[in-house]
Amino acid sequence: MDTLCEKFSKLGIDNAPGQEKTQKDREIDLRGNIIEGKEVDFSHGDVDAFEPLPGSLDCFIKGYEVGGKQAYTEYRGKLDIRKDVAEKISKFTGSKINPEENIILTPGTQGALFLAMGSMIGTGDKVAIVEPDYFANRKLVEFFGGKIIPIELDYKKYADRAGIDLKDLENKFKDGVSLFIFSNPNNPLGVIYSAEEIEGIASLAKKYGVSLIVDELYSRQIFDHRQYTHLCAMPEIPDQMITIIGPSKTESLSGFRLGIAFGNKDIILRMEKLQAIVSLRTAGYCQSVYHVWFNEPEGYMESRIKAHQDIRDELFTKFTDAGYYVRKTEAGSYLFVELPKLDIPLKDFVVALRKLAGVTVTAGIEFGPQFTRHFRINFSQDAEAASAAADRIIEIVKRYTCDC
Amino acid sequence: MDTLCEKFSKLGIDNAPGQEKTQKDREIDLRGNIIEGKEVDFSHGDVDAFEPLPGSLDCFIKGYEVGGKQAYTEYRGKLDIRKDVAEKISKFTGSKINPEENIILTPGTQGALFLAMGSMIGTGDKVAIVEPDYFANRKLVEFFGGKIIPIELDYKKYADRAGIDLKDLENKFKDGVSLFIFSNPNNPLGVIYSAEEIEGIASLAKKYGVSLIVDELYSRQIFDHRQYTHLCAMPEIPDQMITIIGPSKTESLSGFRLGIAFGNKDIILRMEKLQAIVSLRTAGYCQSVYHVWFNEPEGYMESRIKAHQDIRDELFTKFTDAGYYVRKTEAGSYLFVELPKLDIPLKDFVVALRKLAGVTVTAGIEFGPQFTRHFRINFSQDAEAASAAADRIIEIVKRYTCDC
Repeated sequence: MDTLCEKFSKLGIDNAPGQEKTQKDREIDLRGNIIEGKEVDFSHGDVDAFEPLPGSLDCFIKGYEVGGKQAYTEYRGKLDIRKDVAEKISKFTGSKINPEENIILTPGTQGALFLAMGSMIGTGDKVAIVEPDYFANRKLVEFFGGKIIPIELDYKKYADRAGIDLKDLENKFKDGVSLFIFSNPNNPLGVIYSAEEIEGIASLAKKYGVSLIVDELYSRQIFDHRQYTHLCAMPEIPDQMITIIGPSKTESLSGFRLGIAFGNKDIILRMEKLQAIVSLRTAGYCQSVYHVWFNEPEGYMESRIKAHQDIRDELFTKFTDAGYYVRKTEAGSYLFVELPKLDIPLKDFVVALRKLAGVTVTAGIEFGPQFTRHFRINFSQDAEAASAAADRIIEIVKRYTCDC
Repeated sequence: MDTLCEKFSKLGIDNAPGQEKTQKDREIDLRGNIIEGKEVDFSHGDVDAFEPLPGSLDCFIKGYEVGGKQAYTEYRGKLDIRKDVAEKISKFTGSKINPEENIILTPGTQGALFLAMGSMIGTGDKVAIVEPDYFANRKLVEFFGGKIIPIELDYKKYADRAGIDLKDLENKFKDGVSLFIFSNPNNPLGVIYSAEEIEGIASLAKKYGVSLIVDELYSRQIFDHRQYTHLCAMPEIPDQMITIIGPSKTESLSGFRLGIAFGNKDIILRMEKLQAIVSLRTAGYCQSVYHVWFNEPEGYMESRIKAHQDIRDELFTKFTDAGYYVRKTEAGSYLFVELPKLDIPLKDFVVALRKLAGVTVTAGIEFGPQFTRHFRINFSQDAEAASAAADRIIEIVKRYTCDC
């Protein structure tokens, strides 16, 4: 059991978003009075502020009423639903998805990531991940016994690209990387990879035979009419490639646990085999709800994106005025905030913030060990509550800013 | 990727229940005419014949209406639901489950099994599994790199016990087994382990420091008022022990993907860490549906069990009269049928049966390599259709019985 102990000791969840209430009480240096205000949990979006897509519950009920054929589907998901989703996603991404072979319905995009990595990472494989990027990427690579090769994103340097160094990437690909995983738009930064970056990644992966997993979870929520490039639609892509997307974020359907993965048919088959022993299938009745996705009432998505953009602007201005470094979110609902130097550890600050101001944020170290002065917020929240919470954050930061 | 290739080639799903329609067409020796009749898929229960527990959809809708707090729960499941379930299962099993520490809500019992095995099996560990037993046990042990130690069940020898040889088990425990997994009632046989067998397993596991996973998925559907012994309630049990149960079978809630695991708190914590990267949590809105479980209207379960017992009796008599060996199901909805010697491979017979008679069964070899003349059926079906399908099975078997 020793290797298992080690494996699970790396697999921390105490500081993961949503798990804050399970943290054991530690001695924290709490300074000053509690600042009253409506509690805000920035660790994930507030589906009460931005409700699930219209019609989603009705869809679920219809699925329930279908009965047995909806309860027991193929492990990769019900064929008519795969057809519907494949058609919509082909159109959205500009790629060609065969519903019989190239797509699997998964329990959330987390499910898609787990299945994809489990199907593509062997023990000892070198797996390149971006820093910062979605916190589970690191944990998954470690769980499957891969060796992490970090790719730093120089996100402060450019306004028109995410900041990947293609030369550095090429060197690491040359050096034996077998799989490269990244999210676009990036989580936690909310930056979009430029067309040139995407083309570069695609052609390097093709050249060096590196497999790709591209997590496009937030690719429908693009601000300021920016350009977005789907890697799967590039003329040259590697054979072994999987794209992941789902309706949990912009569409607020997280409570149904729906995601998809599409790409190479052999990998999809592996993912299905793995799904069969992981949890059989995406909950049968929930599968019906994919129908509302990409089927929103006219103008619905535009107004939702606009509402998020307004909150972004409000918070971005506040944090920038307070002197923190933040790159303005280009897509998705995250802001990754760099604080001045604090005189307590980041983990303690996060707890103090929750106790003194009723505000939950995700510590930067979840996204890469070097982000010790950073936190991430998901600003898909009630606009007023989020704005007031930002004020409280700024107030609490003052109490812990280092004089040094 | 070579080790991955090998790993996934072992992870077959073509013959797994529910996947039959994805099988590629092979040349099959089809003999005689098609026998008409209502199609019956015995690979799983028919939730149209035995519908989900009353109130389950209403519960789901209530959960949906709760909103964000129901969509985003702790990875191990929402605390108030864990409290409710822990209380009901403590009462049912006679064990003590602390809802804070000793229980996790999982996406089906398949989810519970995956998480438990993933948390308890290290590479190279010797893991004992019963033959025959639930087909995924073998696949999971292999996926996590364990070494399978088969424990044969001598189920033909006794009428009042499942047929485990405790002496053999002790020898294998002595020989370094670290984990023993079994289902009680057994899947596919539907036999119940006697109190003496359960006590024996518990005390041997305790004595040799062997961890246990007990899958009690069918323990609510007991026929003929037989005695059932919950291992978790024994006075002497090993520290590292997990019990699994869920409402997918007798209660027909499979379409919601609900299961639970309870036991040792350190293992439960590992399972939660794993769940966090596998699919975050059991679908939030679905979690509300645990409420109807063990909360059935008076007499509901009794009449459902009686209905299943009647179908069992009908099919048991037919198969026995046809000269097949079947042990009479003591609990659950399975019959494991041993056929006379056939003159085509079992896999082909299963396909022929489907094509000629519209009847789907699960091949015995899914439950252990030696069960080459066996099939399993789940008789939770429309009674009339199941009876007619049994007649068709008997007719088709005649066409393929070896004259030798």
